[in-house]
Amino acid sequence: MSKLILVISCPDEKGLIARITGVLHRHNGNIVENGEFVDAEQNRFFMRTAVEGIEDVDLLQRVLKTELPREARIRISGSGRKRVVLMATTEPHCLGDLLIRAGFGDLPMEVASVISNHDTLRELTESFHVPYHHVSAEGLSRGEHEAQVGALLEAAQPDLIVMAKYMRILTSGFIQQYRNRILNIHHSFLPAFIGANPYRQAWERGVKIIGATAHFASEDLDEGPIIAQDVIPVNHNHGPKEMARNGRDVEKRVLARAVRFVLEDRVIVNGNKTIIFE
Amino acid sequence: MSKLILVISCPDEKGLIARITGVLHRHNGNIVENGEFVDAEQNRFFMRTAVEGIEDVDLLQRVLKTELPREARIRISGSGRKRVVLMATTEPHCLGDLLIRAGFGDLPMEVASVISNHDTLRELTESFHVPYHHVSAEGLSRGEHEAQVGALLEAAQPDLIVMAKYMRILTSGFIQQYRNRILNIHHSFLPAFIGANPYRQAWERGVKIIGATAHFASEDLDEGPIIAQDVIPVNHNHGPKEMARNGRDVEKRVLARAVRFVLEDRVIVNGNKTIIFE
Amino acid sequence: MSKLILVISCPDEKGLIARITGVLHRHNGNIVENGEFVDAEQNRFFMRTAVEGIEDVDLLQRVLKTELPREARIRISGSGRKRVVLMATTEPHCLGDLLIRAGFGDLPMEVASVISNHDTLRELTESFHVPYHHVSAEGLSRGEHEAQVGALLEAAQPDLIVMAKYMRILTSGFIQQYRNRILNIHHSFLPAFIGANPYRQAWERGVKIIGATAHFASEDLDEGPIIAQDVIPVNHNHGPKEMARNGRDVEKRVLARAVRFVLEDRVIVNGNKTIIFE
Amino acid sequence: MSKLILVISCPDEKGLIARITGVLHRHNGNIVENGEFVDAEQNRFFMRTAVEGIEDVDLLQRVLKTELPREARIRISGSGRKRVVLMATTEPHCLGDLLIRAGFGDLPMEVASVISNHDTLRELTESFHVPYHHVSAEGLSRGEHEAQVGALLEAAQPDLIVMAKYMRILTSGFIQQYRNRILNIHHSFLPAFIGANPYRQAWERGVKIIGATAHFASEDLDEGPIIAQDVIPVNHNHGPKEMARNGRDVEKRVLARAVRFVLEDRVIVNGNKTIIFE
Repeated sequence: MSKLILVISCPDEKGLIARITGVLHRHNGNIVENGEFVDAEQNRFFMRTAVEGIEDVDLLQRVLKTELPREARIRISGSGRKRVVLMATTEPHCLGDLLIRAGFGDLPMEVASVISNHDTLRELTESFHVPYHHVSAEGLSRGEHEAQVGALLEAAQPDLIVMAKYMRILTSGFIQQYRNRILNIHHSFLPAFIGANPYRQAWERGVKIIGATAHFASEDLDEGPIIAQDVIPVNHNHGPKEMARNGRDVEKRVLARAVRFVLEDRVIVNGNKTIIFE
Repeated sequence: MSKLILVISCPDEKGLIARITGVLHRHNGNIVENGEFVDAEQNRFFMRTAVEGIEDVDLLQRVLKTELPREARIRISGSGRKRVVLMATTEPHCLGDLLIRAGFGDLPMEVASVISNHDTLRELTESFHVPYHHVSAEGLSRGEHEAQVGALLEAAQPDLIVMAKYMRILTSGFIQQYRNRILNIHHSFLPAFIGANPYRQAWERGVKIIGATAHFASEDLDEGPIIAQDVIPVNHNHGPKEMARNGRDVEKRVLARAVRFVLEDRVIVNGNKTIIFE
Repeated sequence: MSKLILVISCPDEKGLIARITGVLHRHNGNIVENGEFVDAEQNRFFMRTAVEGIEDVDLLQRVLKTELPREARIRISGSGRKRVVLMATTEPHCLGDLLIRAGFGDLPMEVASVISNHDTLRELTESFHVPYHHVSAEGLSRGEHEAQVGALLEAAQPDLIVMAKYMRILTSGFIQQYRNRILNIHHSFLPAFIGANPYRQAWERGVKIIGATAHFASEDLDEGPIIAQDVIPVNHNHGPKEMARNGRDVEKRVLARAVRFVLEDRVIVNGNKTIIFE
Repeated sequence: MSKLILVISCPDEKGLIARITGVLHRHNGNIVENGEFVDAEQNRFFMRTAVEGIEDVDLLQRVLKTELPREARIRISGSGRKRVVLMATTEPHCLGDLLIRAGFGDLPMEVASVISNHDTLRELTESFHVPYHHVSAEGLSRGEHEAQVGALLEAAQPDLIVMAKYMRILTSGFIQQYRNRILNIHHSFLPAFIGANPYRQAWERGVKIIGATAHFASEDLDEGPIIAQDVIPVNHNHGPKEMARNGRDVEKRVLARAVRFVLEDRVIVNGNKTIIFE
């Protein structure tokens, strides 16, 4: 049976759940998953519901609109595969992991293409029958390079862009155009070790745990809304190289986890934070 | 404002959430926490809701009864402290941890008394102004010993009995009398290493991770519904003694976690499993 | 500089470390990593040392032999890549992960070939320029099938065989021939849920944590020496399918971890246990 | 049998392990635990050895001195209990945990006294027969208050001072006097969320994991050498209060772990980092 995912946010008031579930019931919907959250500080209500048995999305949207506060944001999507562009530089671990997951049906996404500023990962990508675009940055200004990348994205029309260790900084304008649709993996446990060489920073500080953070890209580097984090222990035997090696395993599982959340419409951005309906 | 916790289970059918939240809304209730689960195999619906603004518990119970399927079980409780009897033998780590948590308000419970088959933990207990009952098993049959323990429990009328490393086996009859109200901590990652000396068993098997399991006591030893589990890594340097020492830290945090879940009415027993509305 | 890995085990006696490190020093070796363990119950000494600056392996072996108890086992190996055959059935996650790691130099191994009882993973394998042998079991007795697999292994002469979700049971004879050289991943936290369908078993028992175990294959199914284990939390929302899906991530990281340990000569089998010099 | 713990650090050169273990062997010592580490960047060698069978500590110290580079630091200690002063403010979880561990023999320490700037924890402390010193800061300058605390420490002559949620900042002079002997627990995953209200900072940033860090106190607040860290997951349902509540469990286990390491002479400070021979 087809399944719809409703994601609703609006100013909080009494009776919202009753009203929303009442609408779904009157339209013969069967709720199979449900989550709510109230941000008490912002007085804002959030809800994600998976419902079976309702076919007419437009009607549902209209009816919900009349029942909910005027400012309500209502997003209704099917549970099918999303269209994704992957961006990478030279490291294969995140890209390869996502290609295998997509290729064998573990993640509900269609990889439209891979865009990279190097040619290193072409064979890996093409072995999954995914187009590979090498956009070298050599001899180009940041703006020129980004314009080429932007044209490819424009053509691909992705629902989501995943930076699978894409090691270039994006301009503000680029990020604004795809706000909350660019997912990045940072190789530290943010907000620790923002910026370059986080494993070396971690080693210099002598921490006993390192981590990785998947977040939506924002204008301020490494400051966007966090979606998923995970960590592993390290000790004095680990230099920056061993930390990087072990850290790659964390990076790829944190990124895959965050991609799944987004593909399954489990993520709502709330200011600079996320609500994740697991 | 006073808060009520509703825990409902009944055969699944469409519209249950709408009906329940509709009742709460009409009685002026404000839902502050909400969780649902459908056991598709058993076709059974479970819901836990924390609601503010409703005072008349009896009325709410009656109204919900008329709205829900006849077989529905409805439990409504306040969010106050529960009355708990702790049972222990000689190890202080779980008992001491729970006494501190209760004494300083970290867990919403009143410790009515501690019952032990040894006198070892008397001073620790009494320093928290909690009565300590030493019921020696020496020279007594299992039945005679349990009768003495049972009389103390009868007098205490606890909402919950927590076996904080109480190292004696309870009879079937005893367990039936307090079904789903006796919480036990087993020092292994169940179902691995059921029975005696789990750390020695773990060491003999050469596992790389050990754990602890909090569960409701059942007639079949170590087979009751699991509430919480956690683990820690071990290696070849850990003998049974080191495993036991490190394992105690896991035991006490798993037990405290499970006790919190039960005290906050977050646990529903579903056959031999639990649903935990975290 | 070339590096040698010494792995020594012998009956314990005083002064072994002094004697061994004395030999290394007199031969101008520089110890860069060192680990010892004494199994007090078996009175047995184990040591792993990584040493730089010694070229003549045969001489070192001979000298150590004269210095150590007669029963000592001394294994000296270079730190180069090992030759590995991967075996799989239809699941791509472990196989794909290992192929990427080998292909991009993350694990020091050369994948000689992949052997599978299905043809599903051919394209994935061949995209890494690794030969793929499909040995169908259809119409064959267990013995006949294993003979075909055995012939391929005989030809490949691997240092290590990794069963990356190879879902067939091996005969005793086969396992004896490659004792402590067949690495298997079992999709449960052994010794819990031995045998078929461990995720379903875990779901039926209602555990709150699931795991995976990498171990050397032994005659008794799932009873061999454990090399690595890891776990993830689950809850009542996870059916057997979700457990299997999330469990795959644990399987692949536990297997990769164990493969690394073996490739780096960090594992010594001690009876039915392992010593891992991390 | 009595056991000695040797902790040695010196400029690295070839043959150090052979020389040290040679000395131990000639003095009839039996090595029961051994760990080495070379800081390649600083060219510095570190070793910790537990040895049985040697009684004359002074002789051993002298002999090792002649065998090792002149700059070598050699620390030899027995494996008995250390003398510890605990400092706290009003929170009972870390203090209570350490008092139980000390009182029941889980940690090899004698708690000489508890010093607090409040009177809240007196009864808890005294129930373990430990003297409690309430040094109120009211009406005192920082210097005056510290002088009173310092006098108590001077009288107690502790091997180690543990700040078990002591919520006042110490002056530079104080810290220098007890360099690498003051252990502090910070309620964040350092270097994230340095300073005040780390749980609120964590909540505002929207992290998905929070942690705690045990470190030696240094002149720069929260910048001292890290000994142990651990983390727990959080989600959007956790406000600062829930984070603090759950975080307390991490704080107490991280602190206890670090205290054990120090009591067992497993920690060597190396610049602003630690080497932990687990």
